[in-house]
Amino acid sequence: MQNHVLVAIVTLAALLLYFVMGFRVGRARSKYAVPAPAISGNADFERVFRVHANTLEWLPLFLVSMWLFALYWSDAFAAAVGVVWIVGRILYMTGYTREAGARSAGFAIQGLATGVLLFGALGKLIWMAIQGAL
Amino acid sequence: MQNHVLVAIVTLAALLLYFVMGFRVGRARSKYAVPAPAISGNADFERVFRVHANTLEWLPLFLVSMWLFALYWSDAFAAAVGVVWIVGRILYMTGYTREAGARSAGFAIQGLATGVLLFGALGKLIWMAIQGAL
Amino acid sequence: MQNHVLVAIVTLAALLLYFVMGFRVGRARSKYAVPAPAISGNADFERVFRVHANTLEWLPLFLVSMWLFALYWSDAFAAAVGVVWIVGRILYMTGYTREAGARSAGFAIQGLATGVLLFGALGKLIWMAIQGAL
Repeated sequence: MQNHVLVAIVTLAALLLYFVMGFRVGRARSKYAVPAPAISGNADFERVFRVHANTLEWLPLFLVSMWLFALYWSDAFAAAVGVVWIVGRILYMTGYTREAGARSAGFAIQGLATGVLLFGALGKLIWMAIQGAL
Repeated sequence: MQNHVLVAIVTLAALLLYFVMGFRVGRARSKYAVPAPAISGNADFERVFRVHANTLEWLPLFLVSMWLFALYWSDAFAAAVGVVWIVGRILYMTGYTREAGARSAGFAIQGLATGVLLFGALGKLIWMAIQGAL
Repeated sequence: MQNHVLVAIVTLAALLLYFVMGFRVGRARSKYAVPAPAISGNADFERVFRVHANTLEWLPLFLVSMWLFALYWSDAFAAAVGVVWIVGRILYMTGYTREAGARSAGFAIQGLATGVLLFGALGKLIWMAIQGAL
């Protein structure tokens, strides 16, 4: 498939999951009585809030690394690792919403997926820069 | 106009608005006596802080969706919807700064604009993937 | 060097620095006894937390502006200014971790670098739009 269509679809799927996390924060505001603009005061709310906030914190790492991997190396491999990231983030969301200790497995999965994309892209780019300089 | 110049200009205009929101947070720190690194303690400060933070939360949804829409479908339409997003965000900023309840109209406008871009791009990409697989 | 390899490498270097900042937040959680999901309660922790959060707040401004500058104007110049941004962010991290007042120099450097990229790209794009419309 041409034109990075796979990576683009995985990108929008990840953004949809991220949107769902934001929607859950809005719902948790009323459920746990934490009206805007407060973002703390109830631990159940704070866990739902942090699922969304932590995913935002990782989005630039994940999305930029996945696209650079796709652009400079392999579209299909980047998209496949991107699906692993989404699975990790779903486990992170369901675990962390239950209790803070249950966030580790999903977090590790998405972290490994991001590392593969970031260091894979970086290695390929440094290789290209060396080749170009010779 | 070639080369996605319109979408690029709308992108930088949105980032300038986002920069203004960040500048207002700095100013609100002194006005309401909330020195760094604190981010809470005064409701007037917290609303100004949340205008900026919520816009950051939506920036990946908006910018990535607008660019994918522009790259895979229509540059001019993506840029036009991007202008609607900016208008919604300005209303959100001025409303939320006044009171938490006055943030809804602007929020709805920017949310609809983002939805059009995200689901438009996703629909087009799934269509392309099906075409490619046939 | 072709294909924006320099800007891509600077992008990943900036993301690695941002990753280190996130890692320091996790370490500060145990050091200062601020367990998840809390993000406040200890000023030493809060400064380490805000180093990471403020950098996240600036990443879209910096990365998008650098890439638009590289795509529409000069790859090498964008990458060079990107290195200045990274240096400013390192000074910001080490300063702010020590005390809130020591964050200003690094913050100013990365802010100037971002401004050069944002207004440089915007100026070039508006010029292109005018040329295209004539």
